[in-house]
Amino acid sequence: MAKQQIGVVGMAVMGKNLALNIESRGYSVALYNRTGSKTEEVVKEHPDKQLLATYTIEDFVAAIEKPRRILLMVKAGAATDATIKELLPHLDKGDILIDGGNTFFKDTIRRNEELANSGINFIGTGVSGGEEGALKGPSIMPGGQKEAYDLVAPILEQISAKAEDGAPCVTYIGPNGAGHYVKMVHNGIEYGDMQLIAESYDLMKNILGLSVSEMAAIFKEWNTGELDSYLIEITADILTREDDLGTGQPIVDVILDAAGNKGTGKWTSQSALDLGVPLPLITESVFARFISAYKEERVNASQILPQPEKYVFEGDKKEFVEKIREALYFSKIMSYAQGFAQLRTASKEYDWNLPFGEIAKIWRAGCIIRAQFLQKITDAYETTPDLENLLLDAYFVEITKKYQQAVREVVAVAVQAGVPVPTFSSAIAYFDSYRSPRLPANIIQAQRDYFGAHTYERTDREGIFHYSWYHEE
Amino acid sequence: MAKQQIGVVGMAVMGKNLALNIESRGYSVALYNRTGSKTEEVVKEHPDKQLLATYTIEDFVAAIEKPRRILLMVKAGAATDATIKELLPHLDKGDILIDGGNTFFKDTIRRNEELANSGINFIGTGVSGGEEGALKGPSIMPGGQKEAYDLVAPILEQISAKAEDGAPCVTYIGPNGAGHYVKMVHNGIEYGDMQLIAESYDLMKNILGLSVSEMAAIFKEWNTGELDSYLIEITADILTREDDLGTGQPIVDVILDAAGNKGTGKWTSQSALDLGVPLPLITESVFARFISAYKEERVNASQILPQPEKYVFEGDKKEFVEKIREALYFSKIMSYAQGFAQLRTASKEYDWNLPFGEIAKIWRAGCIIRAQFLQKITDAYETTPDLENLLLDAYFVEITKKYQQAVREVVAVAVQAGVPVPTFSSAIAYFDSYRSPRLPANIIQAQRDYFGAHTYERTDREGIFHYSWYHEE
Repeated sequence: MAKQQIGVVGMAVMGKNLALNIESRGYSVALYNRTGSKTEEVVKEHPDKQLLATYTIEDFVAAIEKPRRILLMVKAGAATDATIKELLPHLDKGDILIDGGNTFFKDTIRRNEELANSGINFIGTGVSGGEEGALKGPSIMPGGQKEAYDLVAPILEQISAKAEDGAPCVTYIGPNGAGHYVKMVHNGIEYGDMQLIAESYDLMKNILGLSVSEMAAIFKEWNTGELDSYLIEITADILTREDDLGTGQPIVDVILDAAGNKGTGKWTSQSALDLGVPLPLITESVFARFISAYKEERVNASQILPQPEKYVFEGDKKEFVEKIREALYFSKIMSYAQGFAQLRTASKEYDWNLPFGEIAKIWRAGCIIRAQFLQKITDAYETTPDLENLLLDAYFVEITKKYQQAVREVVAVAVQAGVPVPTFSSAIAYFDSYRSPRLPANIIQAQRDYFGAHTYERTDREGIFHYSWYHEE
Repeated sequence: MAKQQIGVVGMAVMGKNLALNIESRGYSVALYNRTGSKTEEVVKEHPDKQLLATYTIEDFVAAIEKPRRILLMVKAGAATDATIKELLPHLDKGDILIDGGNTFFKDTIRRNEELANSGINFIGTGVSGGEEGALKGPSIMPGGQKEAYDLVAPILEQISAKAEDGAPCVTYIGPNGAGHYVKMVHNGIEYGDMQLIAESYDLMKNILGLSVSEMAAIFKEWNTGELDSYLIEITADILTREDDLGTGQPIVDVILDAAGNKGTGKWTSQSALDLGVPLPLITESVFARFISAYKEERVNASQILPQPEKYVFEGDKKEFVEKIREALYFSKIMSYAQGFAQLRTASKEYDWNLPFGEIAKIWRAGCIIRAQFLQKITDAYETTPDLENLLLDAYFVEITKKYQQAVREVVAVAVQAGVPVPTFSSAIAYFDSYRSPRLPANIIQAQRDYFGAHTYERTDREGIFHYSWYHEE
């Protein structure tokens, strides 16, 4: 029997859909799942496809042509280690394991190193696009040995999403954990984008008193301009949907306001904290989800804590909607500037040489944060490959010039009306901090030197100084 | 020769000062330092004290009465493990090691468990107050075996700071890592307090145009009221000081605006992220330090990015100073509410049964965040031991009633004037989120269900729901 061209371990929805996607590009695929009945099911559902069900690890590995390409789509964490341990005795030098799970990048660094000691290549790859994307074309962010990547690149390019210009949404990200790191930051950015949209909705609802259908039309219109993106598009769609349980209400009005999370946003913030990179917007969006989950406490608190003075909006609603749009785009740019600054620092810290422009490029289709504006990021890095911060690129300078007053006004109104805008206000604070040649951190350094003798630097000469706070005067 | 009552390992300034503090209360102290010359120096400097220099681990351990009480004041991390490893073969069951370093609480949990297996008690204790505090009376936060704590409590009570009512600033915090955890959150709160003061200074300087000496007088006055605290007091003092290098300028004007950090603020934020607790204010203050450290980038960015429209303050300056004071107190309360909510969740997660009211009480003197207002927190927990959030206590409700409009106004002015106020704006966003019975997280849940089939809950009935986004209509 001819060997299969690739193997997939894990027949949950993501593994199954990626296997079907790969098969649809003309590849034969060996399948394996810990519970054999699931593998059988997949093959039975698709009798005319080049899918080979296997029921032992030995049979699975033996069915694949060498050097073997094996895609792991199992639960991130202990299950990944267990699967690798089972596979390892049956593999040959030069074989390639590809972990497509939402794996923490430090685990990928460790596994890549451990397997390399046995001569096995290990690629950790981010896969974004959900179930639908896995089947029809996700955005793929692979990291690991470059020579191993080259052997799987043809498959990944074929199964990936294609941008409007036809470019496949996959590129070599860098060594060991680089791919999973970039996927993690992608998810962090996704948290920020979603919170910014939620705040925009909240402002239109609670300050302007717009109806759900009015807001649907506004998001639909926004999706034709600078904000053109998947998340704006689905928000517009969501706002048109009626409750499927027949209450007659818009579905958004019956959905509980308590957001869950799968932890990747948290990882992004924790890594930024480790790297010393300011990532306030994404972090505020993670905390906003946490606060939302305190639903009962909030309902209780709302009966105890004071309301703000009654705020009546007296401006032009249409003009304010436009200001919200500008604030949203401005704040989104702050978030991406922070995320890419984090990638830049991580790239140095972990010696990854990340291709920033290419990363923005492969996010243009397939993934959750896909958007027209990502092209502007690619352009910025093409103009200045070593750009310190996206905000310094001419296009983004221009946007901040045009829209900064809108954000200021929107935040000022929101704060006075009592509508919480943690990410909008964090965006303008970041902008005003980043463009400040002088921040009040001199006070903090003076305090630290006062109580802890932590020393300080001076503005007018080089060196480390300590003031005799206790003994002078 | 009579045995010494306690031993101290590590003769850097904190270890030396704690040893002198202990000796001053009538205890004999054995000293040990890896480099013997330092130990010799300490004893020579203080010839008439009950200090015994020892030069080998064996002699050190042999010199101490049983059960031995040994205080470790070595660098947190590998040095602590190395010291424990050296000591262990010479210890007897029932001996007590006390780690007084700034140790990560998970290391303390691990060491407590490992040593317990050898019958050794291990206390991890936070010590706050800097060099001065170590010598004259720090705030002490010990965690570990309760029965071991009881054997060191008399010493700790004597060397600790005393609050105005005479109470010693030490109490048993809880098992294993509880003490170091509470010290970590203390430090996070310290970051928040310092950033809030820095923003207040920045507003007075850049919106009101006040001079350094005018601000010194204002902080001095603030220190006589609700804000009475060590950090306000030293800020007032700092603002009166002239450059010691003779430029004739106030010292704050020549100190570089690039803040350093030792990592404990970062740990606090990372733990909050792990626990699912919103901690935006402290986290913004950590990020504010990071941004401040990008000094060169900021100077460069200031020449490229646009300024806000010229803002001219036309109100009453004295009134606005009072509003800044109110905003500072309001925001400080938000920060402590978040920090204590984190302690509450950590207490459950790690099974610590933390004494919240006592913790606030022992912070009233000795430590960097010492303040009058901590008594209000103690009172709140005495009234309601299981208080969900400090904001729900009557005193704090009253303050939010009185001061919320001031914060709103200060943030609105700052945002329009272009003065970055990351923690002030984060404070009002937290308040407005926490008191909102309905947040826009319904949009986020709808999006997550749309692209990832993550399901959602409803407002009107129990259960987990999924909407057929792709197949309906």
